[in-house]
Amino acid sequence: MIVDKPLAELEQYCPALTTASDFDAFWATTVAESDGQPLNASVEEYPFPSDRVTVYRVRYDGFGQNTRVAGWYLVPREPYRIEVDGATPTLVHYHGYSDSKGLPIRQMSWALQGYCVFAVDTRGQNGETPDNNVYNSGSILGCMTKGILDPATYYYRYAYMDCVRAVDFVRSRAETGPIILAGGSQGGGLTIAVAALATDKGIVGAMPDVPYLCHFRRAIEIFTDGPYRELVDFWKKHPYDVEQNYHTLSYFDGMNLAPRIKCPVLLSVGLLDTICPPSTGFAVYNHLSCPKTLKVYPYNGHEGGSEYHEIEKWNFVRSLLA
Amino acid sequence: MIVDKPLAELEQYCPALTTASDFDAFWATTVAESDGQPLNASVEEYPFPSDRVTVYRVRYDGFGQNTRVAGWYLVPREPYRIEVDGATPTLVHYHGYSDSKGLPIRQMSWALQGYCVFAVDTRGQNGETPDNNVYNSGSILGCMTKGILDPATYYYRYAYMDCVRAVDFVRSRAETGPIILAGGSQGGGLTIAVAALATDKGIVGAMPDVPYLCHFRRAIEIFTDGPYRELVDFWKKHPYDVEQNYHTLSYFDGMNLAPRIKCPVLLSVGLLDTICPPSTGFAVYNHLSCPKTLKVYPYNGHEGGSEYHEIEKWNFVRSLLA
Amino acid sequence: MIVDKPLAELEQYCPALTTASDFDAFWATTVAESDGQPLNASVEEYPFPSDRVTVYRVRYDGFGQNTRVAGWYLVPREPYRIEVDGATPTLVHYHGYSDSKGLPIRQMSWALQGYCVFAVDTRGQNGETPDNNVYNSGSILGCMTKGILDPATYYYRYAYMDCVRAVDFVRSRAETGPIILAGGSQGGGLTIAVAALATDKGIVGAMPDVPYLCHFRRAIEIFTDGPYRELVDFWKKHPYDVEQNYHTLSYFDGMNLAPRIKCPVLLSVGLLDTICPPSTGFAVYNHLSCPKTLKVYPYNGHEGGSEYHEIEKWNFVRSLLA
Amino acid sequence: MIVDKPLAELEQYCPALTTASDFDAFWATTVAESDGQPLNASVEEYPFPSDRVTVYRVRYDGFGQNTRVAGWYLVPREPYRIEVDGATPTLVHYHGYSDSKGLPIRQMSWALQGYCVFAVDTRGQNGETPDNNVYNSGSILGCMTKGILDPATYYYRYAYMDCVRAVDFVRSRAETGPIILAGGSQGGGLTIAVAALATDKGIVGAMPDVPYLCHFRRAIEIFTDGPYRELVDFWKKHPYDVEQNYHTLSYFDGMNLAPRIKCPVLLSVGLLDTICPPSTGFAVYNHLSCPKTLKVYPYNGHEGGSEYHEIEKWNFVRSLLA
Amino acid sequence: MIVDKPLAELEQYCPALTTASDFDAFWATTVAESDGQPLNASVEEYPFPSDRVTVYRVRYDGFGQNTRVAGWYLVPREPYRIEVDGATPTLVHYHGYSDSKGLPIRQMSWALQGYCVFAVDTRGQNGETPDNNVYNSGSILGCMTKGILDPATYYYRYAYMDCVRAVDFVRSRAETGPIILAGGSQGGGLTIAVAALATDKGIVGAMPDVPYLCHFRRAIEIFTDGPYRELVDFWKKHPYDVEQNYHTLSYFDGMNLAPRIKCPVLLSVGLLDTICPPSTGFAVYNHLSCPKTLKVYPYNGHEGGSEYHEIEKWNFVRSLLA
Amino acid sequence: MIVDKPLAELEQYCPALTTASDFDAFWATTVAESDGQPLNASVEEYPFPSDRVTVYRVRYDGFGQNTRVAGWYLVPREPYRIEVDGATPTLVHYHGYSDSKGLPIRQMSWALQGYCVFAVDTRGQNGETPDNNVYNSGSILGCMTKGILDPATYYYRYAYMDCVRAVDFVRSRAETGPIILAGGSQGGGLTIAVAALATDKGIVGAMPDVPYLCHFRRAIEIFTDGPYRELVDFWKKHPYDVEQNYHTLSYFDGMNLAPRIKCPVLLSVGLLDTICPPSTGFAVYNHLSCPKTLKVYPYNGHEGGSEYHEIEKWNFVRSLLA
Repeated sequence: MIVDKPLAELEQYCPALTTASDFDAFWATTVAESDGQPLNASVEEYPFPSDRVTVYRVRYDGFGQNTRVAGWYLVPREPYRIEVDGATPTLVHYHGYSDSKGLPIRQMSWALQGYCVFAVDTRGQNGETPDNNVYNSGSILGCMTKGILDPATYYYRYAYMDCVRAVDFVRSRAETGPIILAGGSQGGGLTIAVAALATDKGIVGAMPDVPYLCHFRRAIEIFTDGPYRELVDFWKKHPYDVEQNYHTLSYFDGMNLAPRIKCPVLLSVGLLDTICPPSTGFAVYNHLSCPKTLKVYPYNGHEGGSEYHEIEKWNFVRSLLA
Repeated sequence: MIVDKPLAELEQYCPALTTASDFDAFWATTVAESDGQPLNASVEEYPFPSDRVTVYRVRYDGFGQNTRVAGWYLVPREPYRIEVDGATPTLVHYHGYSDSKGLPIRQMSWALQGYCVFAVDTRGQNGETPDNNVYNSGSILGCMTKGILDPATYYYRYAYMDCVRAVDFVRSRAETGPIILAGGSQGGGLTIAVAALATDKGIVGAMPDVPYLCHFRRAIEIFTDGPYRELVDFWKKHPYDVEQNYHTLSYFDGMNLAPRIKCPVLLSVGLLDTICPPSTGFAVYNHLSCPKTLKVYPYNGHEGGSEYHEIEKWNFVRSLLA
Repeated sequence: MIVDKPLAELEQYCPALTTASDFDAFWATTVAESDGQPLNASVEEYPFPSDRVTVYRVRYDGFGQNTRVAGWYLVPREPYRIEVDGATPTLVHYHGYSDSKGLPIRQMSWALQGYCVFAVDTRGQNGETPDNNVYNSGSILGCMTKGILDPATYYYRYAYMDCVRAVDFVRSRAETGPIILAGGSQGGGLTIAVAALATDKGIVGAMPDVPYLCHFRRAIEIFTDGPYRELVDFWKKHPYDVEQNYHTLSYFDGMNLAPRIKCPVLLSVGLLDTICPPSTGFAVYNHLSCPKTLKVYPYNGHEGGSEYHEIEKWNFVRSLLA
Repeated sequence: MIVDKPLAELEQYCPALTTASDFDAFWATTVAESDGQPLNASVEEYPFPSDRVTVYRVRYDGFGQNTRVAGWYLVPREPYRIEVDGATPTLVHYHGYSDSKGLPIRQMSWALQGYCVFAVDTRGQNGETPDNNVYNSGSILGCMTKGILDPATYYYRYAYMDCVRAVDFVRSRAETGPIILAGGSQGGGLTIAVAALATDKGIVGAMPDVPYLCHFRRAIEIFTDGPYRELVDFWKKHPYDVEQNYHTLSYFDGMNLAPRIKCPVLLSVGLLDTICPPSTGFAVYNHLSCPKTLKVYPYNGHEGGSEYHEIEKWNFVRSLLA
Repeated sequence: MIVDKPLAELEQYCPALTTASDFDAFWATTVAESDGQPLNASVEEYPFPSDRVTVYRVRYDGFGQNTRVAGWYLVPREPYRIEVDGATPTLVHYHGYSDSKGLPIRQMSWALQGYCVFAVDTRGQNGETPDNNVYNSGSILGCMTKGILDPATYYYRYAYMDCVRAVDFVRSRAETGPIILAGGSQGGGLTIAVAALATDKGIVGAMPDVPYLCHFRRAIEIFTDGPYRELVDFWKKHPYDVEQNYHTLSYFDGMNLAPRIKCPVLLSVGLLDTICPPSTGFAVYNHLSCPKTLKVYPYNGHEGGSEYHEIEKWNFVRSLLA
Repeated sequence: MIVDKPLAELEQYCPALTTASDFDAFWATTVAESDGQPLNASVEEYPFPSDRVTVYRVRYDGFGQNTRVAGWYLVPREPYRIEVDGATPTLVHYHGYSDSKGLPIRQMSWALQGYCVFAVDTRGQNGETPDNNVYNSGSILGCMTKGILDPATYYYRYAYMDCVRAVDFVRSRAETGPIILAGGSQGGGLTIAVAALATDKGIVGAMPDVPYLCHFRRAIEIFTDGPYRELVDFWKKHPYDVEQNYHTLSYFDGMNLAPRIKCPVLLSVGLLDTICPPSTGFAVYNHLSCPKTLKVYPYNGHEGGSEYHEIEKWNFVRSLLA
């Protein structure tokens, strides 16, 4: 059943980063480009059968052209809202690959605790948000290889920045206080990316679970299920593009982004995870220089710690705000 | 992809009941026996990271001897508790086959709405509740064939009555008002059973999803996945016991219990459900004579309506209490 | 092993069309819109290790904005080129779902026979052609549900017209004579669509194999493998959109398009096809009013008649030109 | 296809035992407790279509309370019975996990050779023997995690002693001579356990095949199929209990029991066994200090040597009695 | 789970035979040809660890040229041999597809009861018997399509007659009395064939279990697993040979052979059998005009009644000899 | 996803040959025996819908007795035929395991380039060529274990020599010039064998793709899919024959044959190939001492380089003839 290195090795596993020489410049340019682009947010109340939480239907401009990102913004009503220094701590939530932000009910257990929650779609997946970026070529069905011939055109450049812009949206709201990021699988990868790219935007904690999009070379070597397969399937048809594609991926690799993170991080891995193998999570964790906590679930797979870890997150958020 | 009859046929599908002549007597005796057995409940506060809900760890005597049933009892604190005529509406929750009541966090979205929640284990499954009933023979690993040679010794006679006794527990609490039952799959079957067997115990609504344990003959004929297989596997080794076993099962068949239900019911079925095939859910629904609502999810399987249906349940509960 | 109706029933199977009242208007408008849009084709020679066939790398504007469609155009050199009345018969080839036009070598056995061949990508699949249409919402990964909320925005409106425009490209070439369409699976569906929508563009024959995108209701009812699953997966998450989506699909259903075809058709079906079930192919065939030939492969699945059918196609093309 | 270490390494594989400090005391107490508990055996003739073998239906008290263990006792009639010093060598047979003692016919080829045979159920599996031990908590469906929080309450403490008591039953019979133990998979684990725990009860040989319940840590690390999965599934839901559970398992580990065995042992392993991986069998074998024979089947899985090994067992038993 | 018609329909299921006009002539010629060919049997004692049964290694000429058929002939020694009128009843056993006669130990439980047993290989499968018939063409790997273009050259013409010749061998032995045929799956089909073709050779009973090679058209229509797939795979590559091949198969179809059987038959079917679907067994049974008994195992698959049915066979044989 | 050693290790992987002492003598004798046996070829024109290529239906005597090998011989007509020094370069093509030479259309893209092509069946597989060799025993269904008890009787001794004789046939034709061998999987193994055994027969190049039948020990150790499984399945039933069988296989191992090859070789491997694992291809390549080229497809499996590699082969052949 062991699917990766033994735990003792994982704890020491700190592979060399694969950061390209212009990695920082690439992201500095990209973030600046996003910062210079207005959100054009629209916010309208959305009917929901609760007296305690108001739900808003939000749209804002995604990074680049043509793509409006959809989100649910949940705001607890008085007296159900937590306030810290007059503002409400806010969870920004990113979803897993091929999923969506879901219905507002998905975030209710956080909102009913008194937090604001902003849950956003990842573009071009199964939510209300298209991916209207303009690409130069086709790709394997799915998102993993869209625009992969160049870091500047790669799908996740846009998806990552959309997520940074979700933080920008939250910060534009009067009621919003300290920001905590959360998400599992792709949502974990997005959490890492935003924590790394938006270090000056009021984020006080990040909770990536079983993160995807980390340490691509190792992941491809050892995964057996899940969307890393899109890359393999692409390379079956484009065998001569492999190394160039790995170069592109290096800009988006959570392992390379990890050293930039400054806020406290609560990370989880499942040692039987065959979709996002544990060595890829440890590679991220061992490159973090921020305050950090790791929860290892020894016989769990990609579901991670589930209810046990949900409580860890409740406690982690409370500790951040204490 | 169609896995059962077409929808138009399902809507008319009302097979003959298979109720044995002593069906009512059997259950009258059983319920009386349970009513005469004390609960011996223990209730102790359990630490949980919330200021809004108090969690209690509950134990009470299951039906018959030797089995203490475990439950989580969640009580919202002031001012977070809903009150109807001075008492708090309470959800009693039953879980799916082979699962458990989980951790208290599983029920938090209901408790944080202001409802009391009592979530109990099904005996001998993966919770804190053993099945210490005394049996006369072995069985297929699992619960489906324990004691199946006689209705009086069948596992679900005990499991059903444990669930009725969960209602008894709730009614023993001062803060509890109207009771609503809920659960999916096996939890749906238990919801139907309790609604049918505890008609005079303050239950105002029942919300069974994709119910298991209904219309056994049809289910066995058409299912392809899930725990009905235990019966088939048992019959492979005991080919001469089949008809006797079906006789036992008839006492526990949700279809036979359905006509006894008086409270309003919100039922869901997924038309691609291969574990609890839709015709078995329709057989129950079409035998209900209480106020009833059916939600059909045409391309969902055993997951049913998921978030869509969760909202239906929020609304249904609100309508019951309006 | 039988996966659909018995052959005798299939031969008589002619379900009612599901053509919407504005079906003809919809397509008239769409075709006119395409006809009014310039191709802006680029054609450059591409190195290939053959003295007998010249390969050209072609790009032309896909339907609507922003999408350049890629194709390989193979032209036999003298004396290897067939001429009919001074022009060379030309095969236009469409590929299967999630695939691409491949490398030029894929079409060489036709080009080396002396035909021109134009093989084009389907947009947004695994070729060199992106799908840069602008959508209003997200979708299941893949193409089947992109823009499905409205026939005007549906992915295949664009994909179908790109294929019609491939015919336009061929007709713009001096060397091109009579046009024959070919393709299997999605390529079969596209062949049907183009034959139905481009009836006045010099097409003398169409050879759809095991066609996809035909008789959606039946296909969804009975398929077990392949991309119809995208629709089912979409409806799991959007259960209330099913009927609207079927309405959209009706405009793109090969069965509804079939009666419009005028050129001779050679169609193939495999009776064990679980991806594009045989009843959906018969539904098309039985609605054709043009000269038509059906080849039924009784124990083949989605691979169809393979080498046997390849010879049928060689013969069919020769007969068209005789 | 290699599923474990190479053969050369397996032959040397002798991992450290994981015996707890009170291991011997634990078993001394347990055996004494069993020895002090009467069998209360009942023996009644059971009709069987053979003139050569009489079949008896046996029941005796299992270890602890409430559980009557069922067995088939086959006694060859004169002149078909082998006698050694006036008594008949007797095979005690234990079955595989989730199975049962079967019907008497299963043991006929041994009885017809002239041996007595006693085949017993393992409690709570698919025979006529319930498991009416009283547990403190629930468990994964199946037996592997029942009572696992404490060695004293663990399911296999009872199951192992039931098997020792099967030897006690046989020894209580006048016609019984030297005793040989046999069984495959779980039956192999039980054979090892009884040989180790009942060293003074007339056992002259033990024939465990592809034994289960051996070297748990390694087994969990490398198995891919079969009931070790119950432990993994339990740990998914109880991630914090893993080490305590391993402590419990150490008392029941065939590897730890192996050094106690004194009678000759014939052990078999299949090098492609993914249910009871070969390294776990070698770990047992290499810790045996009794006379011992190993049969390695290099390309067999959990079926082991089948008919080849059946002959080995015929020969082994004959050699023990020679 | 239902895999074929409901039981009530199966009991009435008696499809038209597909017997060709020269069916009887074909078999008359074939049997005569075999009867005219000498056995050239060799019989040598084979070492086996039993004092009660002597094992002989037998070889005899298979039907046609070049193929020596291998068998184990087990003869109980005095006083272990049953005698009826001075001769020993003898079981002739045929094995399942792709298997072999196994080792002699496989038949020991019958020999130790006092019967002679002759277990023979089916040619060209996994025993010691090659298939050295001379064919005119290739075939799908396996035996099902060897020589299928003509009944005279079809593999099973030779395999069937080899089995008839096994009876001839037994009859050539002085110690042999009444003959009973047995076998499961392919062995069931061979049992039916021999019982039908060797009606005058001292056969007093036939015990086919879950027979293969019966009612080919229905079998192909409804099977999902097992060697009927060879035919389907062959037809994928030879789509134009299907009807001719069905014609060949008609000569070997157990359903067509059934009416010729005169001895008592004990037949078994499993209603969940997906390899040899139950309707094909009922088709045989309902065409039998001899004394006959059917055992239906309602929730068993191709394993049939296993130990339950083994006892049925012990009883059936005893009743034949009573 | 990595299924074998890392690429860097593969590049250095050169395991010891397992050549038996009489390896060269064995093959010298075998080849001489074949050379002494007449071909008795028959060649008749076969109708095919092409004006450019004439197809002939060929039969010739396979190695040993009784087996006529079938082949398609395609000869381009003037002016479509390439000529080198007045003769036409000729491709000899061997097919994959369990397949056949197919229909003539399969080789048309080579013939239409101007080459002669001779595509032959492998005996006893799914073509028109039986395997009428006389064997001494049965075998697993399939070819891998036929006659495996002795190199002299092993199936592939005959299959290899049939392929050498295909070269002999081609050399007997007036129009034939330099010979190039090609094939994938089993066809790759046959290509290697013929190149090694027919070094003096005008072969100027060999193009084995993803070759089967190479480095058996390693292959068996690491494969997971495909026909090596026949050996494993055979050894399950014949566990004591393993080493003898490996001895037989050593004579047919492409790795042992590789050093004998003198003509240029173009070899391909897919690093994710689980049927013919990459280390077995590298073992061959690293033992080649002829001019050689390796194409490694890093994320392809047994499909190898497909269209990319097809172009490599066009180029390789052109370079051989340049």
